[in-house]
Amino acid sequence: MGEFDLIARYFKRPARRAALGVGDDCALIQPAANTQLAISSDMLVAGRHFFSDVDPRTLGHKALAVNLSDLAACGAKPLAFTLALALPEVNEPWLAGFSQGLLALADAHDCELIGGDTTQGPLNICITVFGEVPVVGGRSQALLRSGAKAGDDIYVSGTLGDARLALLALQGKLDLPAEVLTRVRARLETPTPRVALGMAIRGVATAAIDISDGFLGDLGHVLEASGLGARIDASNTTKLIAAHAYLTGAKGQFGMGNSDIPGFVLAGGDDYELAFTAPPGRRAAVLSAARAAQTPVTRIGQMEAEPGLRLVDAQGQPVANTFRSFDHFAQ
Amino acid sequence: MGEFDLIARYFKRPARRAALGVGDDCALIQPAANTQLAISSDMLVAGRHFFSDVDPRTLGHKALAVNLSDLAACGAKPLAFTLALALPEVNEPWLAGFSQGLLALADAHDCELIGGDTTQGPLNICITVFGEVPVVGGRSQALLRSGAKAGDDIYVSGTLGDARLALLALQGKLDLPAEVLTRVRARLETPTPRVALGMAIRGVATAAIDISDGFLGDLGHVLEASGLGARIDASNTTKLIAAHAYLTGAKGQFGMGNSDIPGFVLAGGDDYELAFTAPPGRRAAVLSAARAAQTPVTRIGQMEAEPGLRLVDAQGQPVANTFRSFDHFAQ
Repeated sequence: MGEFDLIARYFKRPARRAALGVGDDCALIQPAANTQLAISSDMLVAGRHFFSDVDPRTLGHKALAVNLSDLAACGAKPLAFTLALALPEVNEPWLAGFSQGLLALADAHDCELIGGDTTQGPLNICITVFGEVPVVGGRSQALLRSGAKAGDDIYVSGTLGDARLALLALQGKLDLPAEVLTRVRARLETPTPRVALGMAIRGVATAAIDISDGFLGDLGHVLEASGLGARIDASNTTKLIAAHAYLTGAKGQFGMGNSDIPGFVLAGGDDYELAFTAPPGRRAAVLSAARAAQTPVTRIGQMEAEPGLRLVDAQGQPVANTFRSFDHFAQ
Repeated sequence: MGEFDLIARYFKRPARRAALGVGDDCALIQPAANTQLAISSDMLVAGRHFFSDVDPRTLGHKALAVNLSDLAACGAKPLAFTLALALPEVNEPWLAGFSQGLLALADAHDCELIGGDTTQGPLNICITVFGEVPVVGGRSQALLRSGAKAGDDIYVSGTLGDARLALLALQGKLDLPAEVLTRVRARLETPTPRVALGMAIRGVATAAIDISDGFLGDLGHVLEASGLGARIDASNTTKLIAAHAYLTGAKGQFGMGNSDIPGFVLAGGDDYELAFTAPPGRRAAVLSAARAAQTPVTRIGQMEAEPGLRLVDAQGQPVANTFRSFDHFAQ
C-alpha cells in the first residue's frame, strides 16, 4: 500500500467544519468572528512516550488526548487537528487500530482531522490541534499561565499519580494485582482530556495549565509566568491517587509504602489533569463549573506573593520538596 | 541543558503578530476578518529526507521551506508556524545552526514561530505552518488542486531535477565537478519556496500544487482532483534543469547522458517549485505575475478532457512514460 492509499483508507473523511480537509496542499479553516484560535503541538516518540508494543487503539487515543489536554488548559473548544506520522512500515492491523482510537476520541470532541503527513521512519506521532476561544468585548477568554494572583486558591482536577504507578508496574518495578493494574493502566494509556472543565472555568479561573510532566513542575510554570510563589498542602496528597484505597490497605506488599505515594501524586507525570487558580471568593463558582463538567476538583494550596514553592503538612509545617518532574533532556 | 532552557535559548522570541507565542499551553492567533487560515504539516526524518550529517543550518532552512511551499501552492501569505522536534541529544552547536537557518527563512517571510514541542528521540522535525488567504465576496481565493479546466495551460516555476542530480552525486552514484555540485546541492538543501509566485497567481491560476515528489506524480494529483487528463511536451524538459548547460556539454562524462535528464526533470522530486494551470486567455497575466514575483515560469503542456497523462515529443508524437515519482511506502 502506498502513502496516498494509506491516507485514503485510514484517515480521509469528508470535510465537515473545515472549508477544505485532507487531500490538498493545505487545509482551510475559517474561524468564527470574535474568536481566537488556540494552537498546540505534541510529539510522541516510541520508547519515550509509549511502549512500542502498546495497543495501537489506546495509542491513537492518547496521541490526540495529550493535545486536547493543552486546549483544555486554555479553555478552548476543540475544532480540528493535523496528524504527521512516521511509520517503520505499513502495518494494516496497527493502522486500523490506531486510526480507530484516534478518530473515536476526535468524534467525541467534534474535532476534525484536516490534514497532515505520512512518511517512513522510526515511529513518531506529531499532532497539532486547533481550538476556539471567545473574544468578549475585545478581551480573550483564554486561560493563561500568567494570570494567577497572590491569595488565589490552587485546584487540581481528577486524580494524580495513577499513570506513574501503572508505568512502574509495566516496567516490572513493582507488582500490582490485576484489577488495580487494569484501572491505573487506563489512566496511563487512555487519559481523559479535561476539555469540558477547561471551558467551564473560563471567566472563573485566573490561570490554568495541564499536568503532563508532574504537578509540582507544571505548577512551577504558573508561578514563573505569574511572578508568584505557592504553598501546597502535602498532607492530603495520598487521597488524590485513584488507587488510594488499595495502596493504603496494602502498604508494603509490593515494594512501596505510603511514603512513596506523595511522589507519584506531586511529580508523577502523564496525568493530563488541569491545575488552575481562582480567587477564594469564587469557590462556589469553581464547584459549580466542576459539577457542570462532571469533573471532580480538589483545592490543594494557595498562591503567595513570596516566590518559591513551599510544601506544608497538616499543621502548616514545612515539608522538604524532594520531588522532581519529568524533563525530556535532564540527565 | 533541560527542555525549557533549550526552548528559551534557541527558539523563544517575543510574540509579534500572535496574541500569545511560545511558552503557554497553546499559542493564540486571531485571523483577520475575511480571511481563511491555510494549514499544512510536514515531517522530516533523518536518513529519509536528509542526511544525518547535513549542515544543521541548511536543515533548519529546508524544514520550514517545504512547509512554506505548501502555503505557496495555496496562494497563502505565511503567518506563523509550530515546531515539534525530537532530538537524540542536546547538541548546542547543532541547535544553534538549526535555529539560525530556520529563523532566518522565517524572518524573510515574516512567519512567526508560535509554539511547539521538544523531546528526546530519533531526529525528527515536524512543522505545522499557518497562512492567510483572502475571502472576497464570500469566495475563498485559495488555489486548489481541483480547479483546473480542460484546455488550461500547464506551467512550472523555476527549474526541475537539480535536487535529484545533487542527491545522486551525494550518494556517490555519479560524479559532478565541484562548481556544479555546489549549485545543484543548494537546490537540494536550501530550496526556495515560491511564496511570492503563489500569491501573485491568485485569481489567475485555476489550480496549483507544489512539486515535492516529482512533477508528473504531483501533476497527477491535479488531474485526479480536477477529473481531467493532460498532455505534456517532453521535448524541452532538458532545458528545465538548471545544470542544463553543463549536462549537455558533458554528455557521458559522469555516467549519464541526455537520455537520463528527462527523468530528473519529470520525476526527480524535492524541487519545491509550483505546477499550476491557467486558461490560454490569461497568458499575459501569468507572465506579469511571474515578473512581479521575480520567478521564471515555463509553459509545459495542456489540460485535456480525456483522463490520463500523455507525454509527447516536439512533433506531438507519444513518448513512453516510464517515470515514477517518489512514494514513501512504495517498494
